[in-house]
Amino acid sequence: MNSIILNGTIITMLENQVIRDGAVAIENNTIIDVGKTSEIKRKYSHGYEKIDAKGKIVLPGLVNTHQHAAMSLLRGYADDLPLQEWLEKWIWPIEGHMTASDIYAGALLTAAESIIGGTTTVNTMYHYTAEENEAKAFADAGLRGVVGHVCFSWRKKDDRKALEDLAKNWHNQKNGLIRVSIDPHAPYTVDPDYMKELKEIQTELNNKYGEKAPIIWHIHVAETSDEPEKIKKAFNVQLKGGIIEYLDSLGVLDKNVIAAHCVALTEKDIVTMKSRNVKASHNPISNLKLASGISPVPKMLEQGVTVSLGTDSPCSNNTADMFEVMKTAALLHKGVNRNPTLMAAQKVLSMATLDGAKALSWEKEIGSIEVGKKADIIIVNFAKPHLCPVYNEVSHLVYAAKSADVETVMINGEIVMENRKLKKIDLEKVMETAEKAKNRLLERIKSNIK
Amino acid sequence: MNSIILNGTIITMLENQVIRDGAVAIENNTIIDVGKTSEIKRKYSHGYEKIDAKGKIVLPGLVNTHQHAAMSLLRGYADDLPLQEWLEKWIWPIEGHMTASDIYAGALLTAAESIIGGTTTVNTMYHYTAEENEAKAFADAGLRGVVGHVCFSWRKKDDRKALEDLAKNWHNQKNGLIRVSIDPHAPYTVDPDYMKELKEIQTELNNKYGEKAPIIWHIHVAETSDEPEKIKKAFNVQLKGGIIEYLDSLGVLDKNVIAAHCVALTEKDIVTMKSRNVKASHNPISNLKLASGISPVPKMLEQGVTVSLGTDSPCSNNTADMFEVMKTAALLHKGVNRNPTLMAAQKVLSMATLDGAKALSWEKEIGSIEVGKKADIIIVNFAKPHLCPVYNEVSHLVYAAKSADVETVMINGEIVMENRKLKKIDLEKVMETAEKAKNRLLERIKSNIK
Repeated sequence: MNSIILNGTIITMLENQVIRDGAVAIENNTIIDVGKTSEIKRKYSHGYEKIDAKGKIVLPGLVNTHQHAAMSLLRGYADDLPLQEWLEKWIWPIEGHMTASDIYAGALLTAAESIIGGTTTVNTMYHYTAEENEAKAFADAGLRGVVGHVCFSWRKKDDRKALEDLAKNWHNQKNGLIRVSIDPHAPYTVDPDYMKELKEIQTELNNKYGEKAPIIWHIHVAETSDEPEKIKKAFNVQLKGGIIEYLDSLGVLDKNVIAAHCVALTEKDIVTMKSRNVKASHNPISNLKLASGISPVPKMLEQGVTVSLGTDSPCSNNTADMFEVMKTAALLHKGVNRNPTLMAAQKVLSMATLDGAKALSWEKEIGSIEVGKKADIIIVNFAKPHLCPVYNEVSHLVYAAKSADVETVMINGEIVMENRKLKKIDLEKVMETAEKAKNRLLERIKSNIK
Repeated sequence: MNSIILNGTIITMLENQVIRDGAVAIENNTIIDVGKTSEIKRKYSHGYEKIDAKGKIVLPGLVNTHQHAAMSLLRGYADDLPLQEWLEKWIWPIEGHMTASDIYAGALLTAAESIIGGTTTVNTMYHYTAEENEAKAFADAGLRGVVGHVCFSWRKKDDRKALEDLAKNWHNQKNGLIRVSIDPHAPYTVDPDYMKELKEIQTELNNKYGEKAPIIWHIHVAETSDEPEKIKKAFNVQLKGGIIEYLDSLGVLDKNVIAAHCVALTEKDIVTMKSRNVKASHNPISNLKLASGISPVPKMLEQGVTVSLGTDSPCSNNTADMFEVMKTAALLHKGVNRNPTLMAAQKVLSMATLDGAKALSWEKEIGSIEVGKKADIIIVNFAKPHLCPVYNEVSHLVYAAKSADVETVMINGEIVMENRKLKKIDLEKVMETAEKAKNRLLERIKSNIK
């Protein structure tokens, strides 16, 4: 479908550019022109569906760089608990009962919530199952995503098979909408040899399937300060420096690695991240809720590290709302560093769009409204009391706008939400299925039958 | 109007009570019964308008205990700046150009936003003007509020007149919807003698107008750690302890004082707050945005201090969204104290409802769904992807629900929002007026004509 979005305020995310009374022309899945409405209208008058954005803000879709999409089925199951008790007594036992169809149902629910909230790309780490999986859920909803399979030392053989299947069946599929990743769970659950092996598998799979788009690495890094002890306990490896230094010593760090959390970093870790061009996914809401600590984001930014934003799973957030994450990120570092000039709105919006695309090695195709890029575009309705009056649209997007203000969502040139109504999936049915899946999970955990 | 809300899940806020398939009966402005739908329906069958809350959550309206409602006109005017530059170069100069009709327009916008977001009571501190004012705006919107006049040493005579007018014309008016307060700005802008005088004025006005409802004191306290130096500089008073101790030495603290912010408190300050029964308004979003610091809320709660929640002004937040404040409060203290069990959802919801009512000395009438209390009730629609599935409604209300999920708002027995549409004011007109007022403000500041 060819379309033009007209009469809007376009935030392109290229060097603070704002085009008032602007327009975007789209052919198939690609942006072919951006400019003033008067010009664009003249150039593309026939055969383009018109989308009126008068009084509205047009910006790139938000990029959520750390999720475990299937876990929405456990949203609110357990909160306000000590971390180990939360994991061992609550989350892991119920997760053990999740079937392939539960994974699909949870991921579809997260896909729906993401799109409704203006997120057009999600990087998710979960268990891959061949029958039904997160990749299928994202594709069915029309959501762009990097879908990974999470790897642990205790299941190397299964992991290898899952990674091969995932790459073969899903990498750069569905009109380029879905990419895949190799997801070592964390440095304390993946032993040093397996870590290296997973790097080799990445190279191997990239040689096979990665010519047009890279298969990236997605790993939890330094989420809490006790990771060195956990690594020592698990693998009898004594770290000499920080977690990033340790990973670097294994030779696994490069520009196609996205490190989620990056809370407990050393100064040298940050320098290494920059020199290896490792990307960070900052998850402020999850880090606060689980009391993991506060990531040194301003320091990473100072060093020139690419820092993107993520929600983390619906168990530790409890939403997939990137507007909330933007606001929390903008606020938190000002407060804890006693410096109100940190994390200015323009930078935070970039972290949620263009820097997010960079973090997923996808910036050639998404993250900005730019000729040649894929059309992942959201339209935000500013006719709301909390967005009135308007002095500065970018300030409003970060500090005042809400996911519920997103009105239209286009992904890969296709309108997947129009006037807040999802077009590719039946939301009522998605929610009904999730609620039923939850009831079955509770029954299974009660009777302890897998 | 008499009405019954039926078939809902009622969160009464009395000792974690949840009534499934519950109902509330309301006569005029008062709750007359609460129970199972089957019983309530039988007892109040005729002459009651029925409100169906099937699949929805029914809870007390949220109480915002610190606002400067008129300042919504400056939302997003200046952000990400050092505090003094922000105040002196940006906020104060433009505020100097605000007229009485601007104050009304801004307060009406905040009233609209508050109601739409499920807030039914707002405690606001601003300049009182006789012609048009925040009290009139709240009453016009049907919002319950405590409306104050902010007092400074440099305008004692004007303050006295304003306070007398405000109390006479507005205290316990509009069917009890509006109450008023005495608002010394802060310990560094109100000298010690004037502080005592304002306490005398409070007593005097309470003797005249306060028989049925107290006129309270609303003051900024210890928002930043440099207040002792500011007091020294302004009044040549050298503090021997914390700010609360200082105020106590002036004899101004009692149960009808609400202290906003309470960031830089000493241990002894907290003990004194408890012994004088001074109430705190915690404003986490504003404190983070202005980099003021982090209030020791868990310590106040440990000591038994009543801590409520506030948004602060739309300049330092930038919304009037109490759902955001609840989530931020629940997250922040877990994170900075590295303890995920702090600020559990049930307590945070209480801080935003019943404890908010206590903080305004209004708990005999509002803050819970209880027979004899005024009917300030909100209905939240849970048929949303981010609120699915449901394990625990209270967890969802704090960690996942959004202001946009509020569907119906009743204040003082009157439905002021139905299906997200305001009933007493024309929202489009309110926003249009605010936008025009902003444009005039910018013109005036440009030409520097008051």
